[in-house]
Amino acid sequence: MRKVCVYIGGRANYSSIKSAMKAISDHKDLKLQVLTGASAILDRYGCVEELIKSDGFHVDQRFFSVVEGETPLAMAQTTGLGLIHAATALNNLNPDFVLVVGDRFDVLPVAIAAVYMNIPLAHTMGGEVTGTIDESIRHALSKLAHIHFVANEDAKNRVIKMGERTEAVFNTGCPRNDLVLEELNNNHSREKIADLFERYGGVGGNFSLDKPFLLVSQHPVTTEYGHNRSNMNETLEALHELSMDTILLWPNVDAGGDEISRAIRVFREKNNPSWLRVFKNLSTTDYIHLMNTTTCLIGNSSSGIREGALIGTPVVNIGTRQQRRETGQNVITVNPNRADILKAIKFQIDHGQYERDPIYGDGKAGEKIADILSKIEVNVQKVIEY
Amino acid sequence: MRKVCVYIGGRANYSSIKSAMKAISDHKDLKLQVLTGASAILDRYGCVEELIKSDGFHVDQRFFSVVEGETPLAMAQTTGLGLIHAATALNNLNPDFVLVVGDRFDVLPVAIAAVYMNIPLAHTMGGEVTGTIDESIRHALSKLAHIHFVANEDAKNRVIKMGERTEAVFNTGCPRNDLVLEELNNNHSREKIADLFERYGGVGGNFSLDKPFLLVSQHPVTTEYGHNRSNMNETLEALHELSMDTILLWPNVDAGGDEISRAIRVFREKNNPSWLRVFKNLSTTDYIHLMNTTTCLIGNSSSGIREGALIGTPVVNIGTRQQRRETGQNVITVNPNRADILKAIKFQIDHGQYERDPIYGDGKAGEKIADILSKIEVNVQKVIEY
Amino acid sequence: MRKVCVYIGGRANYSSIKSAMKAISDHKDLKLQVLTGASAILDRYGCVEELIKSDGFHVDQRFFSVVEGETPLAMAQTTGLGLIHAATALNNLNPDFVLVVGDRFDVLPVAIAAVYMNIPLAHTMGGEVTGTIDESIRHALSKLAHIHFVANEDAKNRVIKMGERTEAVFNTGCPRNDLVLEELNNNHSREKIADLFERYGGVGGNFSLDKPFLLVSQHPVTTEYGHNRSNMNETLEALHELSMDTILLWPNVDAGGDEISRAIRVFREKNNPSWLRVFKNLSTTDYIHLMNTTTCLIGNSSSGIREGALIGTPVVNIGTRQQRRETGQNVITVNPNRADILKAIKFQIDHGQYERDPIYGDGKAGEKIADILSKIEVNVQKVIEY
Amino acid sequence: MRKVCVYIGGRANYSSIKSAMKAISDHKDLKLQVLTGASAILDRYGCVEELIKSDGFHVDQRFFSVVEGETPLAMAQTTGLGLIHAATALNNLNPDFVLVVGDRFDVLPVAIAAVYMNIPLAHTMGGEVTGTIDESIRHALSKLAHIHFVANEDAKNRVIKMGERTEAVFNTGCPRNDLVLEELNNNHSREKIADLFERYGGVGGNFSLDKPFLLVSQHPVTTEYGHNRSNMNETLEALHELSMDTILLWPNVDAGGDEISRAIRVFREKNNPSWLRVFKNLSTTDYIHLMNTTTCLIGNSSSGIREGALIGTPVVNIGTRQQRRETGQNVITVNPNRADILKAIKFQIDHGQYERDPIYGDGKAGEKIADILSKIEVNVQKVIEY
Repeated sequence: MRKVCVYIGGRANYSSIKSAMKAISDHKDLKLQVLTGASAILDRYGCVEELIKSDGFHVDQRFFSVVEGETPLAMAQTTGLGLIHAATALNNLNPDFVLVVGDRFDVLPVAIAAVYMNIPLAHTMGGEVTGTIDESIRHALSKLAHIHFVANEDAKNRVIKMGERTEAVFNTGCPRNDLVLEELNNNHSREKIADLFERYGGVGGNFSLDKPFLLVSQHPVTTEYGHNRSNMNETLEALHELSMDTILLWPNVDAGGDEISRAIRVFREKNNPSWLRVFKNLSTTDYIHLMNTTTCLIGNSSSGIREGALIGTPVVNIGTRQQRRETGQNVITVNPNRADILKAIKFQIDHGQYERDPIYGDGKAGEKIADILSKIEVNVQKVIEY
Repeated sequence: MRKVCVYIGGRANYSSIKSAMKAISDHKDLKLQVLTGASAILDRYGCVEELIKSDGFHVDQRFFSVVEGETPLAMAQTTGLGLIHAATALNNLNPDFVLVVGDRFDVLPVAIAAVYMNIPLAHTMGGEVTGTIDESIRHALSKLAHIHFVANEDAKNRVIKMGERTEAVFNTGCPRNDLVLEELNNNHSREKIADLFERYGGVGGNFSLDKPFLLVSQHPVTTEYGHNRSNMNETLEALHELSMDTILLWPNVDAGGDEISRAIRVFREKNNPSWLRVFKNLSTTDYIHLMNTTTCLIGNSSSGIREGALIGTPVVNIGTRQQRRETGQNVITVNPNRADILKAIKFQIDHGQYERDPIYGDGKAGEKIADILSKIEVNVQKVIEY
Repeated sequence: MRKVCVYIGGRANYSSIKSAMKAISDHKDLKLQVLTGASAILDRYGCVEELIKSDGFHVDQRFFSVVEGETPLAMAQTTGLGLIHAATALNNLNPDFVLVVGDRFDVLPVAIAAVYMNIPLAHTMGGEVTGTIDESIRHALSKLAHIHFVANEDAKNRVIKMGERTEAVFNTGCPRNDLVLEELNNNHSREKIADLFERYGGVGGNFSLDKPFLLVSQHPVTTEYGHNRSNMNETLEALHELSMDTILLWPNVDAGGDEISRAIRVFREKNNPSWLRVFKNLSTTDYIHLMNTTTCLIGNSSSGIREGALIGTPVVNIGTRQQRRETGQNVITVNPNRADILKAIKFQIDHGQYERDPIYGDGKAGEKIADILSKIEVNVQKVIEY
Repeated sequence: MRKVCVYIGGRANYSSIKSAMKAISDHKDLKLQVLTGASAILDRYGCVEELIKSDGFHVDQRFFSVVEGETPLAMAQTTGLGLIHAATALNNLNPDFVLVVGDRFDVLPVAIAAVYMNIPLAHTMGGEVTGTIDESIRHALSKLAHIHFVANEDAKNRVIKMGERTEAVFNTGCPRNDLVLEELNNNHSREKIADLFERYGGVGGNFSLDKPFLLVSQHPVTTEYGHNRSNMNETLEALHELSMDTILLWPNVDAGGDEISRAIRVFREKNNPSWLRVFKNLSTTDYIHLMNTTTCLIGNSSSGIREGALIGTPVVNIGTRQQRRETGQNVITVNPNRADILKAIKFQIDHGQYERDPIYGDGKAGEKIADILSKIEVNVQKVIEY
């Protein structure tokens, strides 16, 4: 019975690995351990841990690591504290594998704790290309990881080019797409989100989701710290011009998050926009149905590019955060400039929904990951291939 | 005036960067900042900080980070605490560049603090190949660093293959070789070490360095945690067989260090070997002259391979710690097995000194590094090249 | 020139020590060092550090220590991280005295850092009696401190009874009263707060402060963790019944702070009360003028009891947080029960302003403290007196 | 079933609480939880955890917290890291009581974690008077603790005078005396220690314990940091003068520990004393038998005063570390001056063994503590009594 410890540090992490957690939990030769930390256990960021538990998973260890401040300094110290805690937790759990997701700053300390303690490390979403500090973190994680579960062939080739062993790199597709397909196949999106305002509360105007609406998810770019507020303002001003009903999601915990929060708060106080509703956090499934229903998704979330391709969501991708990530036809990328943003949104409103394009996976990623983890033999000593 | 903050976390770090520190300090457009931490400030590991100061450098910030235990868990927590402290220190120093060395576990947190805080990171000794956890750390550091100062063409090609920008990778040679050449050209080795026992004390037998002697430097392999004691025993038993005068250096602070220490202590208590002298730490220059004088260097220190090539020291390299590192003619690599070790030492005794071979640099690395740092323009946002 | 390092960890701390900072800064034999941390540097708690700087003080060192969570566990970890940071900062500052204030959880680690590092510790506001964890912290601080600056005779006697040296306990009065008197003597309160809404923003209803209004400041009681939300609800429901114009201040960072925040948020969403304005943080002086103008101060802030006595503010003090603190005639204490709260507020509305009563000091505390610190000789080795 | 979590941070802690652990473990209404940390789990300090396990206790949680350096700064940071870890561990264990011992610097963070997390805190050995930082820590612990188990009437009166509730202070005697009596009644001391050298190894001269020998245990005084080495030298020089067979124990982990270690190492290198044997750590029982056999115990350990009274050991107590602790007839206190030390040792050699004097307890402390913990009701909100 191999113990696989999955780390969840935030909302995006969870939806990106949930189907793998399910498959590990169901697998006869594997035992799932869940470790939560960083913003995943904080009310202020929507406490993803509650979603995890309500989905039937047991949380084995959890740790508080977010040092308040939302500056690069505070982010670095969150990382240090997370490393101290993760090492303690992994020592308590004593897993056979640690499985981490993606490229967020809170993931790196968990990965370091694992490899310094000689626990084989598996990593998803390696080999992709983006902007922000995530770009550096993702590739550093690939150099620490023993097993790579990537989302497409392009990513697979890139991880191998970086010197990883071909036999250790698996194109399983992205587990998030598993969720997307399951949800879309089993539910009617407009029905699922009909009572969204009631269920989540949120703040701002009240409107019906039966009519066309926009969806906005814009996160800080840490390497542009100091510019996030003005970038967010450009988006808000473009939206102001349209004044179409809009759902906006609160930014994540990265350095610069408070710049964006402040932009939103000031904009709301000043304009009191009845067309704008702000939510803290949504369940993965609600978010998928919003993506399937919205007229256009705006911002810099990777969801527009990854799940958006599969769903066919029209997307206006702003700025450098997703730079060079492989995109489908559904994405228009623009600079953080109100005129360009407005023009792109209008184009997407006219175009409407796109065709489904499974460039990031076909819906079986979770099972593939579990299966590989149940069988693979790992040499804890890595060596570069060339 | 660009501020370059050099981090020193241990004795090996220092000799590997000292000539660059000197060149930065002397450069009219650069200001040197020195940050010390980890084992560099601990008496138990020979307090390299004292050497740094006696060489005329000012230490700007220092931090205690070594969590006692010498287990992988303690090593991980040292790393977390080091990250917390390094972030604070870099925030106080506010440098334009952070320059880190090599592949030791205490270097990674300093690198993370720098890049999370948007400070351009320069790294030396990237692109080499070895064993132990250092192999993973080194390549992860390359993926975080903005500027790469490598020691040979082989390493340069490897860093570029990993996706780093060609224009950001500089084959400057290894700054440690600068020291080596300067020392050997300006001094007579036997004279320099004549009073070594007097100056350092140490414990164990008393003998003259005018006669042939062996030099041993064996460090733990973290990925073989639990086996380091028996590996060290093999070396000690081979030496016992020879009973030739031998200088042995205490191991570094890695997980497993206490396994080796225990092997040494038990061996000394049991055999009371008058041919064995144990030292805590030696200055870089004394070590160079020992390497130039010893009949054979034994163990798994990278110095045998790197400086050894330039000096022509006969080396018996044991086990996996230096696996696949590019070596010159002077190195014989063997398994940690007393018979093989003994045989190899005897071969090297017969062979004697080798020719000088500058595969790791020609003695100008420090100046080249300073010069590049005074001119280079860096985009803090990294993107992989392919 | 004796260096006195004053630690400020939050808004209450600052107003309680500001006049002493001024006097230290002005004293010819003293040099002021300012160390900020905990919630004092966080935007979410109104960033007191900005006020400190705008008052003309230089902040010498600062640290991020607040671990998010607002649970007792997170509070304990904030304390641990604060201790790590405070030790580093004090080591950098190397003061002759550390001066800390009161009884907040973030003060204890700074005090421990000082005494473990053999730096004489001075403490204000010892010897008082209250509820919550502050009660234990305050007396523990007295047992660590070398010099005690207390606010009244009652407190002085209590500190001495605890075994402290009579010669080390000084009834200087509370420095906060220095501010109060200076402000009230030099300004007209209604004029000072006329543009309060404009200057601070805040959220909620808009009303004129020329008409009667209530002031509410209610903080969590950590030893009643889990009950703070329902306690706050009782207050809010009593206010709802009155629906008189009310200014409410956000709670502090103690465990349970988010319980109170949630009570406020939910109440606002549900009732959309136009009579309620919520502020994050106010400058000390604005708060004093509000206390001098409000019809009644409601909640559990020590300000009602301490400055309230001097100003003559009618106060309804709720629950156990200030239990057994010496109060003047101006305070009615009630249980957290909406009926009792309502009844007490109505009584105070009818009564109106009280006479000034200087039980917590006469306005010269800051100067007395500076003067003592400039002369006192301290033996770093404490011994209990009996 | 009440869960009682006992924290052990070092060798002295353990022998001071072992009999209470046994009684808690055996009590039908109590469940023992063991938490180890600080030097208790470090090989360098004799790994007391091994003794704990070999005595049949299960260690539930453990943490590495000792930050190397042995300076006051490192000691403060050890405390901060210990607080972070202790909070995590107590959160995992969720006990009904935390029971801590004495006055060591590593105990305070565990106590703070407990009370900040609203877990009732019980404390032993309160109310005594000594020197070093322990004096401040002990009384601060009393102000945090909810239940006090003191060792004699003098201590009981002092804790009550400090404002603690009379009903919460119990003169149970010291649990260490339980061990002492049990050992002495059931064993013959010379037989028990006959094979001591064989069992522990240690370093230095070899001699028989059948002949008269001295026992030395001298720890650093943190408030005299910088003077510990010279103080230790005085002791060593006095011993040198005598050159009588001597067993010396390694100092504890307090700031200054390395000063003492260095004094010992240098003395041994210089004098190569065949009459001196140095041990790292001894089991509690072996230590008791040594105290019952030695001609004189020298140094500043509290064992001379506390257990020494019961055993009747002649003691030369040096310096301020135990100042004002209640002593029996068996103790002569002298300044750290070689002449005075020598004179006092000679007096004790002439005097021989003293009468048994149970001033620190009658051998039933452990059972009394367990019994009280099984019944007492605690209000987590403390209030000072006057």
